[in-house]
Amino acid sequence: MSDLTLYLAPGSCAMAVHIALTEANAGHRYHQLDLAAGEQRRPEYLAINPKGRVPALITEQGVLTETPALLLYVAQRFPAANLAPLDDPYLLARMQEVHCFLASTVHIAFAHGRRSSRWADDEQAIAAMRAKVPANMRDGFAQIEQYYLTGPWVLGERFSLADIYLFVVAGWLKSIDIALDEFPKLAEHHRRMLARPAVQQALAL
Amino acid sequence: MSDLTLYLAPGSCAMAVHIALTEANAGHRYHQLDLAAGEQRRPEYLAINPKGRVPALITEQGVLTETPALLLYVAQRFPAANLAPLDDPYLLARMQEVHCFLASTVHIAFAHGRRSSRWADDEQAIAAMRAKVPANMRDGFAQIEQYYLTGPWVLGERFSLADIYLFVVAGWLKSIDIALDEFPKLAEHHRRMLARPAVQQALAL
Ligand SMILES: N[C@@H](CCC(=O)N[C@@H](CS)C(=O)NCC(=O)O)C(=O)O
Ligand SMILES: N[C@@H](CCC(=O)N[C@@H](CS)C(=O)NCC(=O)O)C(=O)O
Repeated sequence: MSDLTLYLAPGSCAMAVHIALTEANAGHRYHQLDLAAGEQRRPEYLAINPKGRVPALITEQGVLTETPALLLYVAQRFPAANLAPLDDPYLLARMQEVHCFLASTVHIAFAHGRRSSRWADDEQAIAAMRAKVPANMRDGFAQIEQYYLTGPWVLGERFSLADIYLFVVAGWLKSIDIALDEFPKLAEHHRRMLARPAVQQALAL
Repeated sequence: MSDLTLYLAPGSCAMAVHIALTEANAGHRYHQLDLAAGEQRRPEYLAINPKGRVPALITEQGVLTETPALLLYVAQRFPAANLAPLDDPYLLARMQEVHCFLASTVHIAFAHGRRSSRWADDEQAIAAMRAKVPANMRDGFAQIEQYYLTGPWVLGERFSLADIYLFVVAGWLKSIDIALDEFPKLAEHHRRMLARPAVQQALAL
């Protein structure tokens, strides 16, 4: 058995880790933070993750953060769930490539909407960053549609963590008025993900 | 033997992959792109990496991109070099956590200097983003100094890929007039890295 506690927020990137743990039948606990209320910046939480973000995973050995790192950890901790091609360096790198693209390009593009004050202080700059979010998100998902979604899953015939993470990030599109159907393979992938019992269970929180 | 070709630019994040391959004695080839001249956006290179960035690694099985993904690939391809704790899920996740923090927070903070036009179009917004770069870089390296650099290496007694990637990103500080010595453990780490023969060899290009 495992003794894992995940700090998450509904709708956030931390949901990818929550879904992965649910797919792995990890028997984890979780705590929800209210990001709008600023709970991620309370001293109790900063003692867990000084970066003041979700996800954070408390493990038997210490706290881990950063979504792609946690996803690989789940795959290694629960190999029977077969969530990553751990023994195939090329395929594993393909999976990690998608994770890194989601974390460092697509997630960052999205964060320039609600979290733009991380990168500039004045109001006009913040408005200019927000204005560019839809274009950058469309660029990111166009790359995914064209190069990464070979189908039915990101790694082709093989379901993996990349499908989970992509599903969560794609879920943000509607909040900026981009229809999933702009990306037909992505829309199909999303429906396929929603049909998974573990996904339904994890989303129910 | 391996048949690997790395596309890189001097001083860029791709140097982390080049140093890792050199540490692993991979016998790789490399091509330098002139980013200032826009070589990363030429059709020949976009055919290799449609994202128009370095690094890209041509492997026997296909092209791989994204620095953290490539670093783990090097570790798996060349296990004798012992560049990552592949069989220790917790320690591997710590390493990956540092990689993800560097890629999605520190590298992104830095990119708001030279590459700010990714996130907004107007000149005033670009100036506002540039103005905040030093503060965000100081925040990122303060986290590293306090939480990640336990020393002598990022993973404590054990040298790993995280040391290589950190070394490369820390090398960007001087270009924004931040002295390494603001972060004493980081400065010490930098000197330790410069003393490694593979690092000297890789930097000589
Ligand atoms: N690089 C981190 C980013 C984590 C992150 O930005 N999480 C968001 C939620 S999706 C958050 O906690 N935001 C709260 C805040 O910025 O105050 C990862 O991939 O895990
Ligand atoms: N997420 C990518 C980012 C790659 C990246 O931004 N590379 C920079 C050099 S450090 C680049 O190629 N910039 C050229 C450009 O933006 O045109 C990674 O970590 O590899």
